[in-house]
Amino acid sequence: MQSFPRELLDGYASFMAGRYARERDRYRALAQDGQKPSTMIIACCDSRAAPETIFDRGPGELFVLRNVANLVPTYQPDGGQHGTSAAIEFAVNSLKVENIVVLGHGRCGGIHAALSPSAEPLDEGDFIGKWMSLLAPVAEQVGGNSFMTAAERQTALERISIRNSLNNLMTFPYVERMVREGTLALHGAWFDISAGELWVMDADSGDFLRAETVDEPEL
Amino acid sequence: MQSFPRELLDGYASFMAGRYARERDRYRALAQDGQKPSTMIIACCDSRAAPETIFDRGPGELFVLRNVANLVPTYQPDGGQHGTSAAIEFAVNSLKVENIVVLGHGRCGGIHAALSPSAEPLDEGDFIGKWMSLLAPVAEQVGGNSFMTAAERQTALERISIRNSLNNLMTFPYVERMVREGTLALHGAWFDISAGELWVMDADSGDFLRAETVDEPEL
Amino acid sequence: MQSFPRELLDGYASFMAGRYARERDRYRALAQDGQKPSTMIIACCDSRAAPETIFDRGPGELFVLRNVANLVPTYQPDGGQHGTSAAIEFAVNSLKVENIVVLGHGRCGGIHAALSPSAEPLDEGDFIGKWMSLLAPVAEQVGGNSFMTAAERQTALERISIRNSLNNLMTFPYVERMVREGTLALHGAWFDISAGELWVMDADSGDFLRAETVDEPEL
Amino acid sequence: MQSFPRELLDGYASFMAGRYARERDRYRALAQDGQKPSTMIIACCDSRAAPETIFDRGPGELFVLRNVANLVPTYQPDGGQHGTSAAIEFAVNSLKVENIVVLGHGRCGGIHAALSPSAEPLDEGDFIGKWMSLLAPVAEQVGGNSFMTAAERQTALERISIRNSLNNLMTFPYVERMVREGTLALHGAWFDISAGELWVMDADSGDFLRAETVDEPEL
Repeated sequence: MQSFPRELLDGYASFMAGRYARERDRYRALAQDGQKPSTMIIACCDSRAAPETIFDRGPGELFVLRNVANLVPTYQPDGGQHGTSAAIEFAVNSLKVENIVVLGHGRCGGIHAALSPSAEPLDEGDFIGKWMSLLAPVAEQVGGNSFMTAAERQTALERISIRNSLNNLMTFPYVERMVREGTLALHGAWFDISAGELWVMDADSGDFLRAETVDEPEL
Repeated sequence: MQSFPRELLDGYASFMAGRYARERDRYRALAQDGQKPSTMIIACCDSRAAPETIFDRGPGELFVLRNVANLVPTYQPDGGQHGTSAAIEFAVNSLKVENIVVLGHGRCGGIHAALSPSAEPLDEGDFIGKWMSLLAPVAEQVGGNSFMTAAERQTALERISIRNSLNNLMTFPYVERMVREGTLALHGAWFDISAGELWVMDADSGDFLRAETVDEPEL
Repeated sequence: MQSFPRELLDGYASFMAGRYARERDRYRALAQDGQKPSTMIIACCDSRAAPETIFDRGPGELFVLRNVANLVPTYQPDGGQHGTSAAIEFAVNSLKVENIVVLGHGRCGGIHAALSPSAEPLDEGDFIGKWMSLLAPVAEQVGGNSFMTAAERQTALERISIRNSLNNLMTFPYVERMVREGTLALHGAWFDISAGELWVMDADSGDFLRAETVDEPEL
Repeated sequence: MQSFPRELLDGYASFMAGRYARERDRYRALAQDGQKPSTMIIACCDSRAAPETIFDRGPGELFVLRNVANLVPTYQPDGGQHGTSAAIEFAVNSLKVENIVVLGHGRCGGIHAALSPSAEPLDEGDFIGKWMSLLAPVAEQVGGNSFMTAAERQTALERISIRNSLNNLMTFPYVERMVREGTLALHGAWFDISAGELWVMDADSGDFLRAETVDEPEL
């Protein structure tokens, strides 16, 4: 039979000897009392952009949805099996998270695919093509800008996509209501990978600013 | 405006001073050369079960999809926007991962919902209900077993669901072909949270065994 | 009568007591032997982006043209009085500079004007409007992107404009010939002002990279 | 590819470690609040006569136009792309500078060209010849003065040219009006290079006087 990957077993042994040993009580309490994360992160599947790593967070702190290119569709209560919407519904209505962060990142393969609409599909099912078509209108406009370099178009769409996901989140009636009432806050962020830079979205302008320059919360 | 969560900014500062500082070259190479993870993990959004934490893995190693209850639907090339299938297509056909691990865990809220079909939906859209209906046939049978305790039914369905996801993975033609050809391997695992136990699925029997008891690969 | 600005007289006194006193011999040699700068900089008039300051260069090192938004028109030997073209002709054919650097910068007022074509002219002569019309085709395309924020459009056009100036430089027959022969090199750079970041253009891709990450020259 | 000049990268590193490190707050404020220079300098491209160096001024203080021989054309609202006029329009009408200084200097190559009308053009486009023709009437008279030495003719034309630029500035209607109203002042200055002498023009007589001898502003 196929063996369970050795590096994962080794990694698990390291986890047990390290983090788990140190945080045993926390894990037991989290099992006993249930999870109460205050923040949901919507991130990409990319192996270089794990939210727990970038934000250095431990067990119980982040409820994390990860799909290709951290996309959020609009609210579509049509009876379909919408995995992303299910996670949002659960986080907001059951876990009562106080924050939702859409976390994008540089060199995103999904965004690259969205900017290459004429590329051959990966497979005849073309799930990536269909999934990234959620961005089609914006991807078309950005992709058509012949004066920007390929890398500039990519970064531009990565950031536009984060704003797009945040806008789509607001189409969920309970998200809109709780944001209005001040019990839920939406945030955007973009991780650079290479230099490790984190850029945080300014909610007013939609611009992304280096995390180091973000002021303390106003009281 | 709403401030970016302070604990995330602090966590990011800690990441930069710690892991990033130590692994700067690795991040730069991962940006330059692209990601080449050998393993995809399909895990749950639960805040207590982050794969990178449980397997103690660093940047570039795990391509991670996370949805509610780590479900995989069957292959449905119907033109719909299937986020989970898109991630699988990308991991297998573009990244050429060698392993896919479906990682479930104890006390899963999604599984709990699947076992409570008569509970009131979280919202009129009922995305959780629709999403967990992917498990409806098995959930119905387990849920109807009045001789098991509630906790036993929960654990049973968590494990059945992992096997179900693995079976559904095999409905993707390329997954089936690559598994047959030996270039892709599928694995199941279940994390206990409380005691930190990892249980690994035996591919032949479908049983879950403590990771510590899993033999070295047979030669 | 109007007095010569006091701060300039004070600054001059400071220059004489400082830099001039230290570099007296250099100034005398530069007067005696003439200037032999190896680099021409085409920069903006902006008070925050003086090339000698950003590159910490002394007398005799940089031949500096500064106009609004560091624009270079195409080669137009039509008998008109083209100030920018005159400076380029002098630098290349008389001074024999080896490098031309087009240096743009963030928050450029000229670029802002190019993105606000319907704004009221500053004056009925509308010299700014006419001057920035050199960028009209690209400004139109960038300005029409409704998915980018105003700041993103601004940065995008600042960088596009640098590439545009470099392309226009290549329409000067002698520039083209000397670049081809390897006796003249063209470069782009963009200065951020706020964080003091300098971004250097990669000649192959046209992308801008942080100066700190630029490799040593290949030998 | 062509590498960015090493001495500029080194100079930038020196700037960041020195001036930027000391004036970080000033740069940030200048980015945030925009530039508000009170003085525009119209200077020459010559590498030996950078205004920021001669007047020892820092970021945000001087709005600097530099062309060959610090020429100002007359006001010509003919729809042409006049770079120098655009900078003047922007400085006066948008930045509301209070002073404009035309700064000439000794051993100016452009002035030398203007005094050598029969010299072969640098290139068939002859942009320098065309540009310096702005001075043709005065250059002809000075050049024809056989009783002055070549050096005397050069210095004479350098100073005449400054007065000429100041006169041409007064053909801009808003410059004329603001000077009349006392909200804008025009000044001339000439820098010697060799001995580092700065000569300031007396507005009444047009004579140039050593800066050290210029009186304090009259009260």
